[in-house]
Amino acid sequence: MKLETMKELLLDELQDLYSAETQITKALPRMAKNASSPALKQAFESHLRETEGQVQRLEQIFRHLKEKSKGKTCEGMRGLLKEGEERIKEGGAPAVLDAGLISAAQRVEHYEIAAYGSARTYAELLNENEVAKLLHETLEEEKAADQKLTAISRSVNTKAEAA
Amino acid sequence: MKLETMKELLLDELQDLYSAETQITKALPRMAKNASSPALKQAFESHLRETEGQVQRLEQIFRHLKEKSKGKTCEGMRGLLKEGEERIKEGGAPAVLDAGLISAAQRVEHYEIAAYGSARTYAELLNENEVAKLLHETLEEEKAADQKLTAISRSVNTKAEAA
Repeated sequence: MKLETMKELLLDELQDLYSAETQITKALPRMAKNASSPALKQAFESHLRETEGQVQRLEQIFRHLKEKSKGKTCEGMRGLLKEGEERIKEGGAPAVLDAGLISAAQRVEHYEIAAYGSARTYAELLNENEVAKLLHETLEEEKAADQKLTAISRSVNTKAEAA
Repeated sequence: MKLETMKELLLDELQDLYSAETQITKALPRMAKNASSPALKQAFESHLRETEGQVQRLEQIFRHLKEKSKGKTCEGMRGLLKEGEERIKEGGAPAVLDAGLISAAQRVEHYEIAAYGSARTYAELLNENEVAKLLHETLEEEKAADQKLTAISRSVNTKAEAA
């Protein structure tokens, strides 16, 4: 699809994010299963529920814009999740694997922080205030999820260093 | 490779980043060529030179640790750059494409911010102070590059909205 207008670029970003979030809902259960730290396991599980809410929020945005939600695979997220999956397959000392899973998950969060930030800016420019508000809510959740992972990494890294 | 120790996880991150940076040096000339805004074109060109310096800094780190720099392809960066390439191939109105290139480039910057942040933390925990210092320098450059793109996006987005 040629990008001729800002509206088309916004839609392109939203479809990319919809694919990304859907991929994440499929990957998180496996990340939770392979985490050893109870705090990390719980963080992945609660972020799964949060991500399901973010998918619904995107669907709400598509309905609001009267546009379709599908049609694009987010290649960036596919690559990021492949890295997390590689770490799981490689295996290793539980605390070190936990540290590696956190690092992989933070790449995912940062992808979303960048992408939701761009999409929200486009929505604001287009005076799509309801859409901008919904994107802002998810953006704040992603930033909080990233900070939570940083907090958990402190205890995980200390264990990993002793491994 | 099984991740049994924090040192192995640090090396894994460094090899991932080395692959990522090398891929970026190959992608930036094409992004610069396809940018229409002179400020954006120049930002991509100057970030190419900066990235070449970051590759050298990683090589310095590998020499310091007496480890090899190669052996891993960063799948995350491959996916992210594929997205930027798709945007270029799709084409469209110059200002809208510029906005799309900025958004793609900011995903790349955020990948690096997350990855260098993790690697620096591991280096600090391992008391590899020289390594941590070098990683910190690159991390600050990546944050600055991201902010520069945000600044350029203001004028680009205004043009794109009028497209």
